[in-house]
Amino acid sequence: MIAIDWGTSSFRAYRLDARGAIVDRRAAPLGIMQVRDGRFAEAMEGQVGDWLAAGEGPVLMSGMIGSRQGWKEAAYVDCPASAEQIAARLQRVSWGEGGVAWIAPGVCCRDGGGVPDVMRGEETQVLGVLDELPARAWICLPGTHSKWVEVRDGCIHAFTTHMTGELFATLRAHTILGRMMQDGPVDADTFAQGLARSHEPGGLLHHLFGVRARGLFGELADAASASYLSGLLIGHELQAAAADAATVYLLGAPTLAAAYHQALQHCGRHSVTLDADAAVRGLVRLARHLPES
Amino acid sequence: MIAIDWGTSSFRAYRLDARGAIVDRRAAPLGIMQVRDGRFAEAMEGQVGDWLAAGEGPVLMSGMIGSRQGWKEAAYVDCPASAEQIAARLQRVSWGEGGVAWIAPGVCCRDGGGVPDVMRGEETQVLGVLDELPARAWICLPGTHSKWVEVRDGCIHAFTTHMTGELFATLRAHTILGRMMQDGPVDADTFAQGLARSHEPGGLLHHLFGVRARGLFGELADAASASYLSGLLIGHELQAAAADAATVYLLGAPTLAAAYHQALQHCGRHSVTLDADAAVRGLVRLARHLPES
Repeated sequence: MIAIDWGTSSFRAYRLDARGAIVDRRAAPLGIMQVRDGRFAEAMEGQVGDWLAAGEGPVLMSGMIGSRQGWKEAAYVDCPASAEQIAARLQRVSWGEGGVAWIAPGVCCRDGGGVPDVMRGEETQVLGVLDELPARAWICLPGTHSKWVEVRDGCIHAFTTHMTGELFATLRAHTILGRMMQDGPVDADTFAQGLARSHEPGGLLHHLFGVRARGLFGELADAASASYLSGLLIGHELQAAAADAATVYLLGAPTLAAAYHQALQHCGRHSVTLDADAAVRGLVRLARHLPES
Repeated sequence: MIAIDWGTSSFRAYRLDARGAIVDRRAAPLGIMQVRDGRFAEAMEGQVGDWLAAGEGPVLMSGMIGSRQGWKEAAYVDCPASAEQIAARLQRVSWGEGGVAWIAPGVCCRDGGGVPDVMRGEETQVLGVLDELPARAWICLPGTHSKWVEVRDGCIHAFTTHMTGELFATLRAHTILGRMMQDGPVDADTFAQGLARSHEPGGLLHHLFGVRARGLFGELADAASASYLSGLLIGHELQAAAADAATVYLLGAPTLAAAYHQALQHCGRHSVTLDADAAVRGLVRLARHLPES
């Protein structure tokens, strides 16, 4: 089969053998926003046309390709959502002479205040790690929009999104806090200062201005201030998210997963980092539920 | 005398009679960032040269004109700070043949976590309203960087800054939340929904994503979503700031003061809106402490 993780800014395809092992992979900066005039079939053929010509299939996709701006909208499935329920809502798309692919739907839920929340792509990653989890588990997928997903008995029971990554990026690029920030590796000590700060009174809006004031007073080096801001934001996220979860399963890019691991450790919580290639395994799981062709 | 409130983006000058009444005023979008090569004396003469030529004086200024990027840096005075202590640190600048002006210093303090905080310009506004306050009072100056100032016995005792206004602007201009936002007047009902939301669990980072998700589900009109975001941010600010102050004195632009009035009312707190022209009266108060010339 062919598994494709197709997001806003990137395209990642995997060719798998009958047992689900990856035999080949391709990646390109060809997110759905880079595809003009809805020419998704052509974009895909440009990347994996040789696999398709060789008769490889079925083709399953997840991510923003199933959004309103993607190839075909695959409506959100309500929580609690099992692999079967998600697979039942795979959207079929076709092209050319007999080309067929399936797009995974997103998942939605409502929090205690009745406000909706959505994910698209992460549900497939979670399905890919279900076999590694106990019956009840919290998974954190850090990123632009961090997801905290509660799994119960093989279902996505509920989740919350935190705008941590996007807020970090915009504060850095577009506010007074970014003016003094320099690029560089994460400074673990300064990151920890940010984490500790998030536990103090005053609230996030006040803590943010402190990044500026500490810089002004020479108490925060320009090279380290991004690490402090990162610790501050992640610290606030951790306080709000799944505070009762003693163990958190981390699923994300290695650098980000390492930062969240340090942050969880800082507040006395245990974390287990999972293999970030989970989307492929989630698509393999969904493929089992496809109608016989 | 001439009182000048000279900030980052605007220049406001007032000509006062001997009793401190305003007899003329000038304003221009000539903030310190618009003045090239440190030519502040010329910029000022371009605005109020006729007043100066007529022998009006003394000239007192407050705001970012006293920052490192301004005419001459006037170092921060530590809290608690009285009018006398602030006046004692007025910075003298001179130009041409006998031109002299005085620049007010900012004020700084440290919060319970030892993190510094700063204001520059707001201290002069607070001095301008001292006569209207009881011995102990909380003043809120909403804006790009909202200030909450605790006054005790005629001194600026302590304060905290919240990055509320700048965060609102950057979220709107540069994140996914802004994509659906339309210009328009504040929608009081939707603003109140944002305030109410700020009291629910989940934390600000989660609440922010809810703005997006509500829009996606058609539960928040594009024309009203900026009001919701504003209510959300101001609500979070109010929960963190001076939660023990039963009465809050508001000092700011009318629209913003009205929004904070509604927000305070929403959480059962009383507010009194003060005259926003306070900077002038603060400069008049400082002028009383000038050395005899």
